[in-house]
Amino acid sequence: MTQTFDMALIQRGARLRRSPYFDATLRAGCRSYTVYNHMFLPTRYDDLHTEYEKLLTGVTVWDVSVERQVEITGRDAFEFTNLLTPRDLSKCAVGQGKYVLIGADDGGIVNDPVLLRLGENHFWLALADSDVLLYAKGVALNSGLDVDICEPDVSPMQVQGPKSKEVVRRLFGDDVLKLRYYWFLETDLDGIPVVVTRTGWSGEVGYEIYPRDGSRGVELWDRVMDAGRDLGITPTGPSDIRRVEAGILNYGIDMTLDTNPYEVGLGWQVDHDQEGDFIGREALARIAAQGPKRKLAGVEIAGDPLDLNMTRWPVHQGGRVIGFVSSAVYSPRLDRNIGYAMVPTGVAELGTRLSVTTPEGERGAVVVPRPFVDPGKEIPKS
Amino acid sequence: MTQTFDMALIQRGARLRRSPYFDATLRAGCRSYTVYNHMFLPTRYDDLHTEYEKLLTGVTVWDVSVERQVEITGRDAFEFTNLLTPRDLSKCAVGQGKYVLIGADDGGIVNDPVLLRLGENHFWLALADSDVLLYAKGVALNSGLDVDICEPDVSPMQVQGPKSKEVVRRLFGDDVLKLRYYWFLETDLDGIPVVVTRTGWSGEVGYEIYPRDGSRGVELWDRVMDAGRDLGITPTGPSDIRRVEAGILNYGIDMTLDTNPYEVGLGWQVDHDQEGDFIGREALARIAAQGPKRKLAGVEIAGDPLDLNMTRWPVHQGGRVIGFVSSAVYSPRLDRNIGYAMVPTGVAELGTRLSVTTPEGERGAVVVPRPFVDPGKEIPKS
Repeated sequence: MTQTFDMALIQRGARLRRSPYFDATLRAGCRSYTVYNHMFLPTRYDDLHTEYEKLLTGVTVWDVSVERQVEITGRDAFEFTNLLTPRDLSKCAVGQGKYVLIGADDGGIVNDPVLLRLGENHFWLALADSDVLLYAKGVALNSGLDVDICEPDVSPMQVQGPKSKEVVRRLFGDDVLKLRYYWFLETDLDGIPVVVTRTGWSGEVGYEIYPRDGSRGVELWDRVMDAGRDLGITPTGPSDIRRVEAGILNYGIDMTLDTNPYEVGLGWQVDHDQEGDFIGREALARIAAQGPKRKLAGVEIAGDPLDLNMTRWPVHQGGRVIGFVSSAVYSPRLDRNIGYAMVPTGVAELGTRLSVTTPEGERGAVVVPRPFVDPGKEIPKS
Repeated sequence: MTQTFDMALIQRGARLRRSPYFDATLRAGCRSYTVYNHMFLPTRYDDLHTEYEKLLTGVTVWDVSVERQVEITGRDAFEFTNLLTPRDLSKCAVGQGKYVLIGADDGGIVNDPVLLRLGENHFWLALADSDVLLYAKGVALNSGLDVDICEPDVSPMQVQGPKSKEVVRRLFGDDVLKLRYYWFLETDLDGIPVVVTRTGWSGEVGYEIYPRDGSRGVELWDRVMDAGRDLGITPTGPSDIRRVEAGILNYGIDMTLDTNPYEVGLGWQVDHDQEGDFIGREALARIAAQGPKRKLAGVEIAGDPLDLNMTRWPVHQGGRVIGFVSSAVYSPRLDRNIGYAMVPTGVAELGTRLSVTTPEGERGAVVVPRPFVDPGKEIPKS
């Protein structure tokens, strides 16, 4: 069986949801969608490399409505939300966001949303692909805490790339340029209430616009496109090249319910000394003390440019399978195949030589530092 | 924008999981997949009507690995699982299955799995498309109950249609034919441990095979296909025609977290008088006493054969939008367009005339009984 394949997804039935921008993405020539949080996610209008170039040099728009929000309100919303994540949310001001992990009792990772604190007891979690709405409802059940948990009508879009600053300035005025990384402002555009955040999933400078009225999605889309037309604004999918270069992880493959923060290099998310309690506290303390048994290492894979991997690729050392490559892609500007490999901790040392089974045969690989580009610049450490 | 569209889903990255039968489905010419529980689900090898005929007259195989299992074990597994569903599981024997709803605190529906009771304190839930693994882990957290909750390596396939009996007889012997509806047996096939159930999602007679060793998926697939070759066994997707005829609901559209059992005609699932407690007990008692405000009615829609709806179609009465069509499809043997409409309870009376906005214009509709075919025969009431 070939490792890469095109699948004609003939949508049957109305089970999968459409974004408020869906008609606009079709009209703009979106050529492929995937499914994320039970909803269609645009993944491609052009080839990977063209979209990567647009992101690096211009300004791109990506419909990320699939980042469904979980809204937590009620008298105990702070205490409850703090329980869901190992980060200490007492350090998150109203008006500020944080990249957080949602944790399970055994230290596993349930999700890695961007959290926005809209009020003392008012939070949004912009989700990766898992039903945190259900998890949170389950946790709340016997918690004794007074919270309301729902999915509000909020559907973000990303505006990313070096020229994104000018686009959001034109739309929202100079104030938006003052936003520090992971902070947000609440404003409106032609009467559409929006939250604008200094965030993104691209590794480039960028913003996300969270409209609070899905019925006006196409109108908002058109307004954003108009504001950037002379700057060459372009709708795209995600840039897996750019996000791997930046060391950004993709929930569902680079980290899952079966991985813990220490394995994937997100141990800094765990605030052991905080006052509040959080799910997984004991397990994470134990893992921190003992050290994780395996680690997600940066790897360079030798040979000709590889297509993005479609399955986990086995990693060998001394003839034995010792782990797998989760994400791998060819970076044009590095002229190298880069990616992540989950391997035993001893093997994750810089410079370790490995062998990877790719669809194009066995390839040599070496453990290298990650991120691969712009260390620290746009990694979600805020 | 056209209402029906083909989408080329170019799978990028290894985020979405593949079934143990995936290579076999590709080889068998599967022409489209959708995504369900973060995994690829084959939906079509041939046109809808051809697959429908095969199901009605022969035997079909459908890869339903996406029905991921939640396994619940531990000292309090019975009490915990009983908490998750409004059905009284004290009436479910070891060796028996039940169609159940997983409930939320407000009476909403989290999922509608087939539950199998493998031991006094050993349950599987074969899931529809929502992360019940996370919900159950959340509920367990402060429950004080001693349970283990995991996703085991179990990936079901369906063998359905009138000739399925002969296929499973050849594979598993005469004992399998004695299975009553929703009962199961544990056996093996060439050393592959399997559970065989008398269940399905087709409205026809059928079985599901749950192998407990994903590494041997293609082997099992080939073995099943070989056993039915002279009977014309055919791989297919789901038959939305047949399941709507049978009155079977599809989680995610006909019922969701925002609907309750009384609205969708599944009030019989709620055992108010049971000894054990269950999530949503108070809310469901209140709804039962007051009666639901809206109901999912069977409808016939006038005019030429309609394609399966791709979005919710608005339902009007007296010029006002009063609800929506969730599923609708043309039934060849009834020569009618049939479906479900969520409308106010007063409007759900048999014979009520409505108007539906379809992509092909406004159509008259009338409320009719559901199921549309074979009342009671294969509706999951066991």
